[in-house]
Amino acid sequence: MPGTEIDRLIQLLAKLPGLGPRSARRAALHLMKRRETLLGPLAEALAGAARAICNCSRCGNLDVRDPCAICADPERDGSVVCVVEEVADLWAIERSAAFPGLYHVLGGRLSALDGVGPEDLNVAGLTARLGEGGTKEVILALSATVDGQTTAHYISDRLKDAGVTVSRLAHGVPVGGELDYLDDGTLTAALKARRPL
Amino acid sequence: MPGTEIDRLIQLLAKLPGLGPRSARRAALHLMKRRETLLGPLAEALAGAARAICNCSRCGNLDVRDPCAICADPERDGSVVCVVEEVADLWAIERSAAFPGLYHVLGGRLSALDGVGPEDLNVAGLTARLGEGGTKEVILALSATVDGQTTAHYISDRLKDAGVTVSRLAHGVPVGGELDYLDDGTLTAALKARRPL
Repeated sequence: MPGTEIDRLIQLLAKLPGLGPRSARRAALHLMKRRETLLGPLAEALAGAARAICNCSRCGNLDVRDPCAICADPERDGSVVCVVEEVADLWAIERSAAFPGLYHVLGGRLSALDGVGPEDLNVAGLTARLGEGGTKEVILALSATVDGQTTAHYISDRLKDAGVTVSRLAHGVPVGGELDYLDDGTLTAALKARRPL
Repeated sequence: MPGTEIDRLIQLLAKLPGLGPRSARRAALHLMKRRETLLGPLAEALAGAARAICNCSRCGNLDVRDPCAICADPERDGSVVCVVEEVADLWAIERSAAFPGLYHVLGGRLSALDGVGPEDLNVAGLTARLGEGGTKEVILALSATVDGQTTAHYISDRLKDAGVTVSRLAHGVPVGGELDYLDDGTLTAALKARRPL
């Protein structure tokens, strides 16, 4: 029988997304076989993250300082704010290096099924930022799902008197995607939004 | 851009089996969103494991004490030693609750391809234990692969003058297994080792 310390480690590892009880056991054994090179450093990295990381009070991003590196960067275009659901979406857009502006993390999307209402999202922070002036455009980079689009409608409705342009991401064929494997909705959207060559 | 603390955390998480760079990022975000309930406790559990857990000097099992709980248990049958490749195998047999004896963890199996030779396995510890007397049977619970069977042959050869019975696990149809999905080797072994009803 593994000792209580090992049991507790396995239980906590099993709470990570992508790890179940079985793979958590495997991960725990992997860690314990590499006590010096992995177990110790990972324990320190987690403790360091628990100490240092905070949410940016301005945009909701996770960073070791507040305001975060993006909000504090004078090179970035403060006139465009990209609204995303989660920090993961912000990171995904940052990886593409295609957006020079600032972000705003809602912290979720409206969902009647999951009981997420407007008061659970950080919309007040967004309207407060727009009230400070300087923002010309708000890009709604929300999921192309029913919940994501409901959220987009709600936010654009809330922003209609804020004096900013509200836009959304384009729908269409993903780069590298094959038409044969695409759903009807995407094909319809891509046809509708066709562009002259 | 995630901060350096976050980057380091993602890099370390990606070294766990079952997590790649993408799922490590997801796990890191999951952890940072649950700072109080998961990130802190996991950091503590890892640090606790790094401090407390050691290899049993007798059998090689991982535990918070040495000798481990199994070796120290007076209820267990000291006359039978089950030889396994890894601690994970020991845990698997313990979960089945089908074995009342003691264990010996080799720490791997002979593999010419991976450069694992006899000196890399804890065989000396096994022969030393047998030399102390009291052991009547050694069960080789090794993988039914070429490497596992090579290891089994090597160990039974080393133990031929130790005055103990050496046995191996039975090969056959797994309980719950369908014949249609079994490989020829297993079917041949199951036919050869058929038992009267």
